[in-house]
Amino acid sequence: MASWFQIPKNSPFSLANIPFGIISSQSASRVPAIAIGDHALNLSQFASSGGFSPLSAIQQHLDVFHQPTLNAFAALGRPVHRQVREYLQNVFRAETQYPQVLKDNAELQKSALVPLSEVTNHVPMQIGDYTDFYAGLNHAYNVGVLFRGPDNALQPNYKHLPVAYHGRASSVVPSGTDLHRPNGQILTNPAADPKVPEFSPCKKLDIELEMACFISKPNDLGRPVAIDEAEDHIFGLVLMNDWSARDIQAWEYVPLGPFNAKNFGTTITPWVVLLDALEPFRTQPLEPENRESLLPYLREKRAENVYNIPLEVELTNKGGQPSVVSNSNSRNLLYSFPQMVAHHTITGCNLRTGDLLGSGTISGKEPNTQGSLLEQTIGKKPIKLADGTERFFLEDGDTVVLRGMAGTEGNYVGFGDCVGTILPAVPI
Amino acid sequence: MASWFQIPKNSPFSLANIPFGIISSQSASRVPAIAIGDHALNLSQFASSGGFSPLSAIQQHLDVFHQPTLNAFAALGRPVHRQVREYLQNVFRAETQYPQVLKDNAELQKSALVPLSEVTNHVPMQIGDYTDFYAGLNHAYNVGVLFRGPDNALQPNYKHLPVAYHGRASSVVPSGTDLHRPNGQILTNPAADPKVPEFSPCKKLDIELEMACFISKPNDLGRPVAIDEAEDHIFGLVLMNDWSARDIQAWEYVPLGPFNAKNFGTTITPWVVLLDALEPFRTQPLEPENRESLLPYLREKRAENVYNIPLEVELTNKGGQPSVVSNSNSRNLLYSFPQMVAHHTITGCNLRTGDLLGSGTISGKEPNTQGSLLEQTIGKKPIKLADGTERFFLEDGDTVVLRGMAGTEGNYVGFGDCVGTILPAVPI
Repeated sequence: MASWFQIPKNSPFSLANIPFGIISSQSASRVPAIAIGDHALNLSQFASSGGFSPLSAIQQHLDVFHQPTLNAFAALGRPVHRQVREYLQNVFRAETQYPQVLKDNAELQKSALVPLSEVTNHVPMQIGDYTDFYAGLNHAYNVGVLFRGPDNALQPNYKHLPVAYHGRASSVVPSGTDLHRPNGQILTNPAADPKVPEFSPCKKLDIELEMACFISKPNDLGRPVAIDEAEDHIFGLVLMNDWSARDIQAWEYVPLGPFNAKNFGTTITPWVVLLDALEPFRTQPLEPENRESLLPYLREKRAENVYNIPLEVELTNKGGQPSVVSNSNSRNLLYSFPQMVAHHTITGCNLRTGDLLGSGTISGKEPNTQGSLLEQTIGKKPIKLADGTERFFLEDGDTVVLRGMAGTEGNYVGFGDCVGTILPAVPI
Repeated sequence: MASWFQIPKNSPFSLANIPFGIISSQSASRVPAIAIGDHALNLSQFASSGGFSPLSAIQQHLDVFHQPTLNAFAALGRPVHRQVREYLQNVFRAETQYPQVLKDNAELQKSALVPLSEVTNHVPMQIGDYTDFYAGLNHAYNVGVLFRGPDNALQPNYKHLPVAYHGRASSVVPSGTDLHRPNGQILTNPAADPKVPEFSPCKKLDIELEMACFISKPNDLGRPVAIDEAEDHIFGLVLMNDWSARDIQAWEYVPLGPFNAKNFGTTITPWVVLLDALEPFRTQPLEPENRESLLPYLREKRAENVYNIPLEVELTNKGGQPSVVSNSNSRNLLYSFPQMVAHHTITGCNLRTGDLLGSGTISGKEPNTQGSLLEQTIGKKPIKLADGTERFFLEDGDTVVLRGMAGTEGNYVGFGDCVGTILPAVPI
């Protein structure tokens, strides 16, 4: 798709993408926008200036473009998202049917198109609840090997249901937010009897490479979402770094799971990539044959229920050169997002517009394809950075960037950078 | 404290209480209110009619009484809550300093005082995140004995930190909401190899008797709340029934903790009892000597950091007579709510106004003092109800009522009933 607007060929935000977000800029407080190449299109300004006039389906809902979150837009449902995305693609096309809207409207271009370098991104939705799954088969296996050996690496439930835990919504932050190293209780000497923890800044600070979906259409309490309707409850996807304090986790997690080890911050990319934009990249999950042994409420009609999206992890020492330390792919999931929705709601649990569901860490099987440092180093082989330093875990000043992009040059569908820098622990 | 207003002597909502909630009625959509005896005082109506005129401190904040949740009022902070509560006590006192406000104002009495039987109660706050702790020492011990025997009943971390997990906020419902028995995966034959779950309505549906606090003052991400300031971040307490599907839990919970076993519903009492109202009932926690071995960030100055509040669990077969099946007390906690706040935030996790923190199940040590059926029956001794039927777990049509009340006749400080009835599972 060629555009009259200049879109860099390597941009994750090609005309094939059209992701939605919430921006603020010098001239606007939080408003909905799309990313297109190196720019954001302010949809509040666009709507106010008649940008959506040719699209009759959205006329009675224009207020959604003047909200500080995408919740109202998401709640309109997938058919509306699809029409709006396709209309905006049309507006930016070289051969647009609507040249008067933006192509030939220099004034609106000037007021509504803002360079990405001049906007601040925000968490795009008001998140009601955040749930983190554990659907990355290789991650579950790798961690299981570390803790229980290869024979019992996967728990008996793993191939029957997408394991999950409730996460912390308040500390989900947009890409670019620096985070302090957490303090907490650490068991420095696990062999001691009795076991006595010390208070310390985390010494084993790790990342987790994940994808996550935002919920669009809610379901009522007591009303499960059927597996083959689940996709229509999903607005779109983002990348997510589920920062993890491994030493805090090791001491606290019995018997109720991770808590403080994960609640100090979770970073997401601010642009929500709609499922329609990812449709060309559908593929089968790991172990597609597992589908046959699933209970019917988890069995999707479509075999291609995950996406082939190359993912990478970049780590940079303060002031140093970036090193790509891992290359993975979002197809490394045993369960799809629709399966997560179906499982989450099978008890009658209600999902709300804006809820966030993480995939769990996405690791490959080969060397340097793991989604966490714990897996990649297995506590023995440090990662070597470009500046010659080594890492088992993150040091203060380290910057981590997650990236994910599918497609080909000029037509990339990507998420942009998921960036976070670690600040020193707050003195207590 | 005598009142000019008729307050039944056995009411949990005496003049010594003044709990806050959100009601709707024939004449009002969701508005803040207090409970006083058998009535609610509509604070929106009260404020609009000049009811707060004598209270200068609140004049610039009167809009908080016209909100559909208590979040804005809670965010004003404890000194304001205290002034408002004491002012309202004064207004209702026999010897009120402000007789013109309500005592001698028949018109306002008629418009603002509504019988509780004519109001609908709502979840009083917009809950950002809900966290459930595990601070009931006897419960943790009892469950530990069932799973690991008496020698290893408590995990090594238990006496060093208040164990917790993130819960599900969307399905927190007000007392009186019926809940469907959840469906899910159950391992009927744990001895089989390989282990294969079946899909079924939960067969081991249980209750958990808890208390919970709502957060008033928020803290910023990266800024822990100091232990001796934590109390000022707490708005007040409610009773909570953390319904639990034990069979779903047993299969799903490794390695990340309970998820679907708890996400189908959590019932709370709708009236928030302020900490100031509970001040006379302060007492030492279980094992006060444990304080000495805690890390400093958890060591409270005040030794009396929990409350002496008798609690009870009532179970009624459909159409039958109620049976009180358990009597416990909120002093059966090893950790206080301020300790939970300090621990939750020590990593820098941000709590927001309206966040809900559950205590964990509150069980005593003696027979018939447990906060869950699992503990009380230990799978061997069924509970006998008044109609002669027996229970290991809940049956469809069963109604559970939790109650908690401190103080003496005429001056009770209580929470009202925390009621829920189990409906049959939804057919899948």
